[in-house]
Amino acid sequence: MFMEGKIRYGMVGGGPNALIGEVHRMAARLDGNIELVSGVFSSDSQKSVAFGSELQLSEDRLYDSYQKMAEKEADLPEEKRIDFVVVVTPNHLHFDVCRSFIKAGIHVVCDKPMTNTMEEAEELCRLVEKNNTIFALTHNYSGYPMVKEAKSLVNSGKLGNLRKVVVEYSQGWLSQKVEEEGNKQASWRTDPDRAGISSTVADIGSHAEHLVEYITGLQIEELYADINTFVEGRPLEDDANMLVHYEEGVRGVLISSQVSVGEENNLNIRIYGNEASLEWKQENPNYLRMKYPDKPEEIYKKGNLYLSALSKNNTRIPPGHPEGLIGTFANIYSAVADAIVGREDGDEVNLDAYDFPTVYDGLEGVRFIRKAIESGKKGVWVKIDDHVA
Amino acid sequence: MFMEGKIRYGMVGGGPNALIGEVHRMAARLDGNIELVSGVFSSDSQKSVAFGSELQLSEDRLYDSYQKMAEKEADLPEEKRIDFVVVVTPNHLHFDVCRSFIKAGIHVVCDKPMTNTMEEAEELCRLVEKNNTIFALTHNYSGYPMVKEAKSLVNSGKLGNLRKVVVEYSQGWLSQKVEEEGNKQASWRTDPDRAGISSTVADIGSHAEHLVEYITGLQIEELYADINTFVEGRPLEDDANMLVHYEEGVRGVLISSQVSVGEENNLNIRIYGNEASLEWKQENPNYLRMKYPDKPEEIYKKGNLYLSALSKNNTRIPPGHPEGLIGTFANIYSAVADAIVGREDGDEVNLDAYDFPTVYDGLEGVRFIRKAIESGKKGVWVKIDDHVA
Amino acid sequence: MFMEGKIRYGMVGGGPNALIGEVHRMAARLDGNIELVSGVFSSDSQKSVAFGSELQLSEDRLYDSYQKMAEKEADLPEEKRIDFVVVVTPNHLHFDVCRSFIKAGIHVVCDKPMTNTMEEAEELCRLVEKNNTIFALTHNYSGYPMVKEAKSLVNSGKLGNLRKVVVEYSQGWLSQKVEEEGNKQASWRTDPDRAGISSTVADIGSHAEHLVEYITGLQIEELYADINTFVEGRPLEDDANMLVHYEEGVRGVLISSQVSVGEENNLNIRIYGNEASLEWKQENPNYLRMKYPDKPEEIYKKGNLYLSALSKNNTRIPPGHPEGLIGTFANIYSAVADAIVGREDGDEVNLDAYDFPTVYDGLEGVRFIRKAIESGKKGVWVKIDDHVA
Amino acid sequence: MFMEGKIRYGMVGGGPNALIGEVHRMAARLDGNIELVSGVFSSDSQKSVAFGSELQLSEDRLYDSYQKMAEKEADLPEEKRIDFVVVVTPNHLHFDVCRSFIKAGIHVVCDKPMTNTMEEAEELCRLVEKNNTIFALTHNYSGYPMVKEAKSLVNSGKLGNLRKVVVEYSQGWLSQKVEEEGNKQASWRTDPDRAGISSTVADIGSHAEHLVEYITGLQIEELYADINTFVEGRPLEDDANMLVHYEEGVRGVLISSQVSVGEENNLNIRIYGNEASLEWKQENPNYLRMKYPDKPEEIYKKGNLYLSALSKNNTRIPPGHPEGLIGTFANIYSAVADAIVGREDGDEVNLDAYDFPTVYDGLEGVRFIRKAIESGKKGVWVKIDDHVA
Repeated sequence: MFMEGKIRYGMVGGGPNALIGEVHRMAARLDGNIELVSGVFSSDSQKSVAFGSELQLSEDRLYDSYQKMAEKEADLPEEKRIDFVVVVTPNHLHFDVCRSFIKAGIHVVCDKPMTNTMEEAEELCRLVEKNNTIFALTHNYSGYPMVKEAKSLVNSGKLGNLRKVVVEYSQGWLSQKVEEEGNKQASWRTDPDRAGISSTVADIGSHAEHLVEYITGLQIEELYADINTFVEGRPLEDDANMLVHYEEGVRGVLISSQVSVGEENNLNIRIYGNEASLEWKQENPNYLRMKYPDKPEEIYKKGNLYLSALSKNNTRIPPGHPEGLIGTFANIYSAVADAIVGREDGDEVNLDAYDFPTVYDGLEGVRFIRKAIESGKKGVWVKIDDHVA
Repeated sequence: MFMEGKIRYGMVGGGPNALIGEVHRMAARLDGNIELVSGVFSSDSQKSVAFGSELQLSEDRLYDSYQKMAEKEADLPEEKRIDFVVVVTPNHLHFDVCRSFIKAGIHVVCDKPMTNTMEEAEELCRLVEKNNTIFALTHNYSGYPMVKEAKSLVNSGKLGNLRKVVVEYSQGWLSQKVEEEGNKQASWRTDPDRAGISSTVADIGSHAEHLVEYITGLQIEELYADINTFVEGRPLEDDANMLVHYEEGVRGVLISSQVSVGEENNLNIRIYGNEASLEWKQENPNYLRMKYPDKPEEIYKKGNLYLSALSKNNTRIPPGHPEGLIGTFANIYSAVADAIVGREDGDEVNLDAYDFPTVYDGLEGVRFIRKAIESGKKGVWVKIDDHVA
Repeated sequence: MFMEGKIRYGMVGGGPNALIGEVHRMAARLDGNIELVSGVFSSDSQKSVAFGSELQLSEDRLYDSYQKMAEKEADLPEEKRIDFVVVVTPNHLHFDVCRSFIKAGIHVVCDKPMTNTMEEAEELCRLVEKNNTIFALTHNYSGYPMVKEAKSLVNSGKLGNLRKVVVEYSQGWLSQKVEEEGNKQASWRTDPDRAGISSTVADIGSHAEHLVEYITGLQIEELYADINTFVEGRPLEDDANMLVHYEEGVRGVLISSQVSVGEENNLNIRIYGNEASLEWKQENPNYLRMKYPDKPEEIYKKGNLYLSALSKNNTRIPPGHPEGLIGTFANIYSAVADAIVGREDGDEVNLDAYDFPTVYDGLEGVRFIRKAIESGKKGVWVKIDDHVA
Repeated sequence: MFMEGKIRYGMVGGGPNALIGEVHRMAARLDGNIELVSGVFSSDSQKSVAFGSELQLSEDRLYDSYQKMAEKEADLPEEKRIDFVVVVTPNHLHFDVCRSFIKAGIHVVCDKPMTNTMEEAEELCRLVEKNNTIFALTHNYSGYPMVKEAKSLVNSGKLGNLRKVVVEYSQGWLSQKVEEEGNKQASWRTDPDRAGISSTVADIGSHAEHLVEYITGLQIEELYADINTFVEGRPLEDDANMLVHYEEGVRGVLISSQVSVGEENNLNIRIYGNEASLEWKQENPNYLRMKYPDKPEEIYKKGNLYLSALSKNNTRIPPGHPEGLIGTFANIYSAVADAIVGREDGDEVNLDAYDFPTVYDGLEGVRFIRKAIESGKKGVWVKIDDHVA
């Protein structure tokens, strides 16, 4: 897919101390076909402009507000204006920012969780449909080559009929009350006004849930959540463990925690079928294990010829040369770029054709968060019977 | 602790095809101070005698039934009769066999689960108390040197206040309906008449539960179990996952499964405190990991001087020289031998003085199994408020 | 260090099928401050231009030959011409290309090995000195954050006096005669006309040697090499194992192989001091192990606060978020960019101030390759007594 | 193979502080068919008797000297006297002790290295032949189930033609001068009068060499050794690294060290063929890895049905249940017991029929040690052209 010139994007959020902003920018740069040209990096306009200048953006593309940015960019001539916007603000702003750009006819890449309420999530779905917008949600962990391979292996039938899923996302960085010690990331994530009804489930549990759905295609029928707050005075949960019933009789355990001291970014998943099982761990992401009842365990390794096309197409360098987390975001950016170029070439919108999480995944994620918190609060199984078709 | 002559024991169960019997015998031999002299190895008397002869036992110590064995051995002169009996029959026979020997004044080492009903378990407790019998239950996994170290580390306060436990015991050997293909172990374990009300929870979930209690000393306040049967036509569960509330606000997840294809004997535990966490895996048992919020992860290794006395005292060979599962049983046998010698030396019975699971651990295990199955069937949290004091 | 505009570079080599070219370009893009603007990507001029256009370079910056490129770029106004050139041709061309650009006053980033002969390597040193050129050699593996940490740990004295080094770089991709099956990378690397006197030592043994020198600062006093060619008809070695005597009585073993079937990119190093030892493995690069005589092994993990500034400054994302190989090249590019900006700001040339391999490392590498091959051919210890001071 | 009564053995050496003696005794006990009945456990007769009594041996079977023991035991009636003796003295006594018992017609199990000189080793070979004695050397590491599997895999041709072997045995316990701090094991191992001409090569390098020969059947054609003494004042080497040329063009690297701080008992081996390679590590001994050029790496796991008969026959418990180092000695004892029973049943002596290291392996080991030290001292390749046919 060849383009003249680069795809241009703008960013909302992701200022000086927001690490995730720089991760997005590095990822967008990696393949050389995407260019940052505009942004509102901070709610403090001066800071935003200063930061944009550091990034060597032209001052006339640095705006006071995302509303103005959406409006002004839309007014620019096609060959100049941004093709898409990246939304990396705290959660509570996602909805408004996304809505503004969608309405302005600009494609969107948005951090998860997509919104803080179901109503907002549903509204974004409607807007995306109405405006025929490309919308990608950065559940980046499904961007790893060996997660792609996991999906391919499940699809190939090599595991047989699925029976059980054990997925975990454990971190330890909220073990102490760091939100009161100037940790900005902790500060908004533990604050209901900005994070919404959930902290840990929203921040990382939703990644775990998406990983299961991405690899297996299974949707949750009902879940039972045990929601805990270990650090005193914290208004939202910092730990959540769930029993999950998926479609087709598949049973699951989902563990998520941000107070598991000593864990860094321990996302891992095991999927058991009746013929084989697989295991993948984010902290050593270039390997995947397959286990069988009657033959040696196998270690699949990134980049090899024996892997699926889906996995190989999301790989940049040869076997034994580690690929990292930035590549997972880059794979989303690359797929979004393909979609945009395809659109410009006149392609029909076909959401299934592109391998990135969509606005519907965003809706599923928000629903999952709400149902988990609901279950935890009420102490009952909660059904999820209104999945996106 | 020096003895004249060896401690003598007899065995009930553990015949030709019962692997666990040979594991017990190897373990009992390891330290050279315990001798097998008597037994009923099979309900088929001929088989039993033939097997006992292979083991080079004297024919007059091979009995037709365990009842007769208890009676006759009790009648032998003290310097000849067995000091204790090892009970390695299918579950449903544990109670009767144990009762017979306790009543005959013979100490007991019994496989888990102790009995199939609470009434039986309570009755054994009463009998043990009344007869002042030494009674050990072979929750062998707590016999590993690095599990002892885990207990010592928790006791030392190095983890701070405990918050969360994640324990798992996953196997795959019941993934297919092997009980119909002549697998004797599978046959009785999946049969309610012999295994009782539970298969997987009784067989391995109870090991996981005991491991938590051994290391942390924490008792369960309530649990919520999701009980599954994946192999069609199987009358008992083959998979069970639980949310657990321990004392002192500690939260837990307990995963157990015998249909997790490709898993061999994957028992592992993680314990998270507010200051540090630990991790141990049975399949690589000579190592234990400690993780901290602000310094490098540590790998504690079996046999080193920096370990606790409890750990070192349960170690036979130097660092880097792997110790295996047989040693875990041997550690129980060694502790039982010490207790017996102590008793002969006139020691008071002091259950806390000896480091092996007791009849009360057996009672707790039976209670755990029943509560888990109850929760799974009713779909409610079940309290455990009647722990042994 | 703030710049107006980006640093501009050109590339020689690295055309359509040359993976290493794209790795360099991705690395150069990562931090957003370096821009590719010029190149000769192939000796076939048409291919070169076509490829440059795909990269969206302006046609007037795509040249027929590297000679012309050096000349024309030097003639461009300062604000337009390239600041440095990246040389990613087969080995035999490195010298001529580097010389052309150095003479034209353009800084250089060159792949290893620097040249095919000592004379050429020494000439490049002289030229670099004379022209006051910044010259970086891409021994990228020393760019990993945990290799930086290894260097810091050795420097800190935590290992005590060094005693022994075991370093290995094993691959398997040349196990079969793939150079006759159209594998271009294999083709030139096994061809004396293009690769020089050595294949495996030059291609990967030199990385291993540099890793030792980078981390420990130790230079080789003498070495004894066993040089093997396993694949019949191959004119150069495909396996080489060495005994090494370093300064200060340190002893070493260096293993390198490209016929170790099943190995992907297995570069690993262990350094033993009299007080502690460290271990690092490229295929799981974000971890480093420290071992002690009398306390638990430690796992240092990338990105943590307890690491050295040198390590943290070469890290882009938080602990538990894997960084990969592209980052190692990016770290060299970043250091080169700093050096160039520093130069433009009027800094003195101070080679020690910048953390990238220099032209003198290149000379040491070429010397190492020659001495190893000499030792292997003659079957004698070969001294290296003419190290760069 | 069924016996009446147990096989009886005596022990020379292995007294109170000699850990290896207890390891042998535990191993001999494990399978229940071998019984310790006699011994000289210390050169100090009183200590010896006291220790024998602790082991509950009859006093009339505790002797003043090994000479008397050989003589007296030989005079006992067949159904009472020992079938074999275990020699676990310091190295310098092996020869005399073994000779005494062989001459007395008693089978021998001897620790490695077999003797301190070639002449002694050859003499033992002659004596064994002449007296038709069973003689086993305890290179125990080849007793692990997964080492047996390695041998089977090589024999099966699954690796193709062998090319390269990398074997290592690194320990750290002699990093400091512990022989002067009361460490008895260190004391005799570093003393030329007792250990012979070599410390590290004799103690552990010889294990590494035997492991290669056991698995591959390859004999060394020539070797080049770099012999080092890191701890000042130590008369023998504490570190030795070798380049090795095996038969059939196979190349090798052998690393051995007892000053590699932090290493515990790091024996590991990799064998590369032209079609696949294997890797095994003693510190996690129940797993073996197979690597291929074009398919996923495989992890073979102890005890599984897919393994070779040789491996399964040396396994005691099921997959996932760790077996340890004591089992490796037990496997030698078990094979020796089989040989003795076979002999009593009138079998011809067929050394190839039994899977334990023989007197000829002992001779090869002594030769290896001498050639390695010779190479190290002279700085030349040393040929080994006088292998046992």
